[in-house]
Amino acid sequence: MFRNKVEEAYKRIQDEICLVLEQIDGKGKFVEEIWQRDGGGGGRTRIMQNGNVIEKGGVNFSAVHGKLPEPIKKAFKVDSDDFFATGVSIVMHTHNPFVPIIHMNIRYFEVQNANETEPAVRWFGGGIDLTPHYIIDEDAIFFHQQLKNTCDKFDNSFYENFKNRADDYFFIKHREETRGVGGIFYDRLTNENTKLDWQQLLEYSIAVGNTFAPTYGQLINKNRDKPFTPENQEWQYLRRSRYAEFNLVYDAGTKFGLETNGRIESILMSLPPLAKWNYNPQIIEGSLEAETQSKLKKGINWV
Amino acid sequence: MFRNKVEEAYKRIQDEICLVLEQIDGKGKFVEEIWQRDGGGGGRTRIMQNGNVIEKGGVNFSAVHGKLPEPIKKAFKVDSDDFFATGVSIVMHTHNPFVPIIHMNIRYFEVQNANETEPAVRWFGGGIDLTPHYIIDEDAIFFHQQLKNTCDKFDNSFYENFKNRADDYFFIKHREETRGVGGIFYDRLTNENTKLDWQQLLEYSIAVGNTFAPTYGQLINKNRDKPFTPENQEWQYLRRSRYAEFNLVYDAGTKFGLETNGRIESILMSLPPLAKWNYNPQIIEGSLEAETQSKLKKGINWV
Repeated sequence: MFRNKVEEAYKRIQDEICLVLEQIDGKGKFVEEIWQRDGGGGGRTRIMQNGNVIEKGGVNFSAVHGKLPEPIKKAFKVDSDDFFATGVSIVMHTHNPFVPIIHMNIRYFEVQNANETEPAVRWFGGGIDLTPHYIIDEDAIFFHQQLKNTCDKFDNSFYENFKNRADDYFFIKHREETRGVGGIFYDRLTNENTKLDWQQLLEYSIAVGNTFAPTYGQLINKNRDKPFTPENQEWQYLRRSRYAEFNLVYDAGTKFGLETNGRIESILMSLPPLAKWNYNPQIIEGSLEAETQSKLKKGINWV
Repeated sequence: MFRNKVEEAYKRIQDEICLVLEQIDGKGKFVEEIWQRDGGGGGRTRIMQNGNVIEKGGVNFSAVHGKLPEPIKKAFKVDSDDFFATGVSIVMHTHNPFVPIIHMNIRYFEVQNANETEPAVRWFGGGIDLTPHYIIDEDAIFFHQQLKNTCDKFDNSFYENFKNRADDYFFIKHREETRGVGGIFYDRLTNENTKLDWQQLLEYSIAVGNTFAPTYGQLINKNRDKPFTPENQEWQYLRRSRYAEFNLVYDAGTKFGLETNGRIESILMSLPPLAKWNYNPQIIEGSLEAETQSKLKKGINWV
């Protein structure tokens, strides 16, 4: 069955990414927890804490199925009851403020009616986005170029479309700033709203997954040994508090997980190991921090 | 006008609380920022950071008026356009993990139609609740007893009723735990749904305000010099992360402020100066932390 192919591909992506991240980090190891979902399915949560580079990060796989909870039915506007959802979710927080926070998600969802051969509803979603504590233009350009290269292999319209969606999605409305430099964000891709068939959509999803490790690996290796001051670290803690604000106030996946009784520690692994909310922090004009702040906006064309 | 009496009383409460807190702290001073609201009115935000006892705290007064924004109209189920809202909001985060976090709010809201003498809609709301990093029974009992004493002067049913509402309100649903030991929480008190007239309701609101400083002062002085370990502090940072989760995910005042373009730094002054999200922290059986965790539940009758 198609869903099994997706599930196996996602598991492999989780395995490969964990392997590469451990190699790059050189010290931290992923600790795995296998969990079962009451209604059906389960997942493999893999967390690294206190590595050389990674302060706290998770590479989580899940594949759950069962009766659709009411909030999902409503959110996804489907009437059927039997759903299957699988995905890989990643968030990485680093010790060094010059190494960016990164987030990736790839997911597949379907609703299968008992007496039909094809799923009644199904789609792919996902994306990768980057949240540098300090925006380094060269890194943002490289990051976006990697995403564009992956997208262009499938559809020339994907990158621009999904880049704009990421700008809109990863936006902290009450701060009027983006979470970081964005990336790509897509949802509900089907064989009807794209030029790809289901097999090609799966390949695109896998390609996004495979873009993660080499791209982030390069950003880590380029910046991991940069010296930093206590002031840089303070700024990192401030940027992390904004990250927490976004995830707790706006992130659809987080909200959805909290509302549907998901596995809380897996959902909230995205939150930073340490964050600071000082009152009304002031940014010195002309500083590196001011430069970053000025680039936390939508519509920057990095490539 | 009645609204002016409320506003003046609230300003005085802000002044008095700031004075007392500065005296108790002995080092920290409140820094005031006066702000104006585009649509009418404004406020006095007063923040203390890095005192002897208070690590970060705010005692904020606001009195705003103008045309009712759509989200409020909807939330409050009123049709009229001219509103007035005033309140005092306090959150205190302390250095010492044995001194509790505290929160107070007192507020008055009304909608006045141009051609009428009495407001079309009006009510009082507010409460005080305590979030000890470590629950000390004696302190929780004292705290609740102070609140009960204040409530009993006005209506014998208030304490029990508002205590239960606080249990329900300050609940972190996704963690299945209360934010702290609760306190009192009330909303939309009117001369119709209480035995009090408007003047008495104002006096109750003032009495709640006046309960804050002596009560918190005693809790500070009792615990401020207790020695603490790095492990106690880690637990404090964990409890603070739960506090941030509650405020960003559930708190109605915070949500309302973020959605209606409130003054962000005043709204989010409630967030902790430093918070930690370690992955899946484990609590040692029989520890002080385990004892606190076991008491983060609704329905404990402290008095």
